[in-house]
Amino acid sequence: MHLLDLRHHVLEANLMLEREGLVRLTWGNVSGIDRDKGWFVIKPSGVSYADLSVEKMVVVDLEGTVVEGHLNPSSDTPTHRILYREFEAIGGICHTHSVHATQFSQAGRELPCHGTTHADHFHGTVPVVRELSEDEVAEDYETNTGHAIVETFRERELDPVAMPACFQAFHAPFTWGKNALDAVKNSVALEVCCEMALGTWRLNADQAPLPEHILRKHYHRKHGPDAYYGQ
Amino acid sequence: MHLLDLRHHVLEANLMLEREGLVRLTWGNVSGIDRDKGWFVIKPSGVSYADLSVEKMVVVDLEGTVVEGHLNPSSDTPTHRILYREFEAIGGICHTHSVHATQFSQAGRELPCHGTTHADHFHGTVPVVRELSEDEVAEDYETNTGHAIVETFRERELDPVAMPACFQAFHAPFTWGKNALDAVKNSVALEVCCEMALGTWRLNADQAPLPEHILRKHYHRKHGPDAYYGQ
Amino acid sequence: MHLLDLRHHVLEANLMLEREGLVRLTWGNVSGIDRDKGWFVIKPSGVSYADLSVEKMVVVDLEGTVVEGHLNPSSDTPTHRILYREFEAIGGICHTHSVHATQFSQAGRELPCHGTTHADHFHGTVPVVRELSEDEVAEDYETNTGHAIVETFRERELDPVAMPACFQAFHAPFTWGKNALDAVKNSVALEVCCEMALGTWRLNADQAPLPEHILRKHYHRKHGPDAYYGQ
Amino acid sequence: MHLLDLRHHVLEANLMLEREGLVRLTWGNVSGIDRDKGWFVIKPSGVSYADLSVEKMVVVDLEGTVVEGHLNPSSDTPTHRILYREFEAIGGICHTHSVHATQFSQAGRELPCHGTTHADHFHGTVPVVRELSEDEVAEDYETNTGHAIVETFRERELDPVAMPACFQAFHAPFTWGKNALDAVKNSVALEVCCEMALGTWRLNADQAPLPEHILRKHYHRKHGPDAYYGQ
Repeated sequence: MHLLDLRHHVLEANLMLEREGLVRLTWGNVSGIDRDKGWFVIKPSGVSYADLSVEKMVVVDLEGTVVEGHLNPSSDTPTHRILYREFEAIGGICHTHSVHATQFSQAGRELPCHGTTHADHFHGTVPVVRELSEDEVAEDYETNTGHAIVETFRERELDPVAMPACFQAFHAPFTWGKNALDAVKNSVALEVCCEMALGTWRLNADQAPLPEHILRKHYHRKHGPDAYYGQ
Repeated sequence: MHLLDLRHHVLEANLMLEREGLVRLTWGNVSGIDRDKGWFVIKPSGVSYADLSVEKMVVVDLEGTVVEGHLNPSSDTPTHRILYREFEAIGGICHTHSVHATQFSQAGRELPCHGTTHADHFHGTVPVVRELSEDEVAEDYETNTGHAIVETFRERELDPVAMPACFQAFHAPFTWGKNALDAVKNSVALEVCCEMALGTWRLNADQAPLPEHILRKHYHRKHGPDAYYGQ
Repeated sequence: MHLLDLRHHVLEANLMLEREGLVRLTWGNVSGIDRDKGWFVIKPSGVSYADLSVEKMVVVDLEGTVVEGHLNPSSDTPTHRILYREFEAIGGICHTHSVHATQFSQAGRELPCHGTTHADHFHGTVPVVRELSEDEVAEDYETNTGHAIVETFRERELDPVAMPACFQAFHAPFTWGKNALDAVKNSVALEVCCEMALGTWRLNADQAPLPEHILRKHYHRKHGPDAYYGQ
Repeated sequence: MHLLDLRHHVLEANLMLEREGLVRLTWGNVSGIDRDKGWFVIKPSGVSYADLSVEKMVVVDLEGTVVEGHLNPSSDTPTHRILYREFEAIGGICHTHSVHATQFSQAGRELPCHGTTHADHFHGTVPVVRELSEDEVAEDYETNTGHAIVETFRERELDPVAMPACFQAFHAPFTWGKNALDAVKNSVALEVCCEMALGTWRLNADQAPLPEHILRKHYHRKHGPDAYYGQ
């Protein structure tokens, strides 16, 4: 994808945040990467979605240097940078404060797989990433947020392709995907699955998770070599 | 109805899914059947609602063979096929992952009739259909989903005309009706009745169901030879 | 108001139902009365809001006879008729199945006044009207629904002007007002107050009602000779 | 800012109330002040948002006298006046009956900081302001509402710049900010944080607040001399 096409794609992905009800005010940002160049395109900080344009998107390299653009990139840019560097198979990242996923983040509560809506997107339990220590916040808050996410995936041996989401404790969700639009779709799925889980638990506080053979079936219907969903 | 009219009708019914807030992304599909021909029209798989057109709808016969259309039909097509074959009085089928009805599915919880909104559409308790076994999933997941639904209606002696809905355990609701639009209307009604039941139980955890004589009255106000609702 | 103006006004009030999120499909109806003529204008039965027009509205007299219009009036017309006949000070009536107010109806739960939003519209606790007996349903369901509402207001000595709303048990809310638009506004207020009460009770299960002196103040700020809200 | 620009700005801020889902009917008002003149612009009372225009906005001085405009100012004008007089650093005020924030008001429940969404806007626990006594209501309800808010901030030594919000018991929230739009943004944030807290507590009834070092970090990322969020 040419850089201009990537700018368009990432702009579209950012606009989808508002249309899908994942953000209020300016509480969310999406980026997409050109792996050949090692550059990623990201939303400018604090600009309302209605005011975004292709020109206003900011291009940053994997050292965190702005290579194109007149505006400050999202304050969460260092988190995106670490995730792109450490999760080499991903092409887009999305961060929102969507209501139900943020409730899980604030409560530090994992999301087990309770149904096929979840299994279609996330292969297993969506993990919680610990909050940062006083030193980590003081040193470099946003960079260390990325490190904490990577640490969780390493320690729990999670594949970021099969589990493209996490809840940062006391904060909000991060998702990722093949590209920026795919990352936003995973944010939609995460938000809806959190809302569904809350109601499921109201109906049955001890609800068992989806049986493993159905989880596997639904995940592989949509992902990997045997996928047959879509065109 | 001519096949072209049926294509238009089924397209409209699929577009209604998004307008009524029953779907996110591409999580739902509607079909409608021409009983004379034995062909049904269904949404193509994984295509967004905004991109649908009359030409993109797929026509399938009751053996499951695509008879018109260039795109893959919905991955749930085999489920629709079984339901059309076994429930001969129905003319349309709708499958969504609408939030509240999916909460009931994930919790494996039946929906008793708690009020007239429910009685206007569903004559009694909306049943849960069991999840599939490992063998059923491995053999033919979507076809066996249809068989499991039919099995539930046979075993519980439910008339699919008077009870045009079910919750598939761990998955999501299926509804049907006289035609595709009617099937979508029943999905709207099911979603709202699930949301209403959740609040009713918060107000009164042991709420009794609607008295039988009012259920009967409301159902027959709208359905059958003595109906007087509408024009 | 001329009858044609009244038709326009009642049409507008019915269209407001959908815009305010009080109805799905065709689950609601509004009417307005010309007290001089003794005729009221009401929505036709089962017609979608998008298809309504001034010409399609139905005019009915207080005996229940259609005096103008080609379509069947709402199936709830006899309920409206009784309320107009017995509550002489009201000019409009609204019936919906709005989600939260229907939850209160289904649970047979009164709504105490928990705040100023409520006090601005309803002077005290919104009452529940009992469900109809088997005989009342068999004899004339919709007419007897009106009688049951009137009976409740008589027995509890409620003034329908100060308390323009009730929950019919197992069914849904009815509201009324000075005219059709005012009746719809009271339906909005009732729906929101029900939603607010559910959350208030989650925060404090034994929440005390609004102190009487604030209820009085807010109600009279908007209603009666000392009102100073508005223009 | 010229007075005409201020009128435009305050009009925009009032229109945002409806777009952001913070109000139904006419249940909310926003004002903005010109500190040099000592005049503030406020919504007219009981006028629907769709009918607002620059000309209809009302200009009031800090004695409460209307200095420009043909319509009655919002009935809550005396509350705004007291807040402008006592909180000298603020430039705009917003009052709504948004659902979740009103639930907290009706339950008389403070909102502790449970996450970064909250910390980005409110430095600590959002306080409850007591309801007015019978005498205070009788004497001058709206003016005394302002006094009660100021009293709470004095007694609890709260800085209205760092804590631009409160819940008035049994009533609804008030927020403020640098200007009218900023006040509305704080109303959006308050509403969402209340909804998030309700879900957080459902997931963990004893959830601890956000650690102090993260609260401080997020607040100062957006506010004060070291802020680096935005452009």
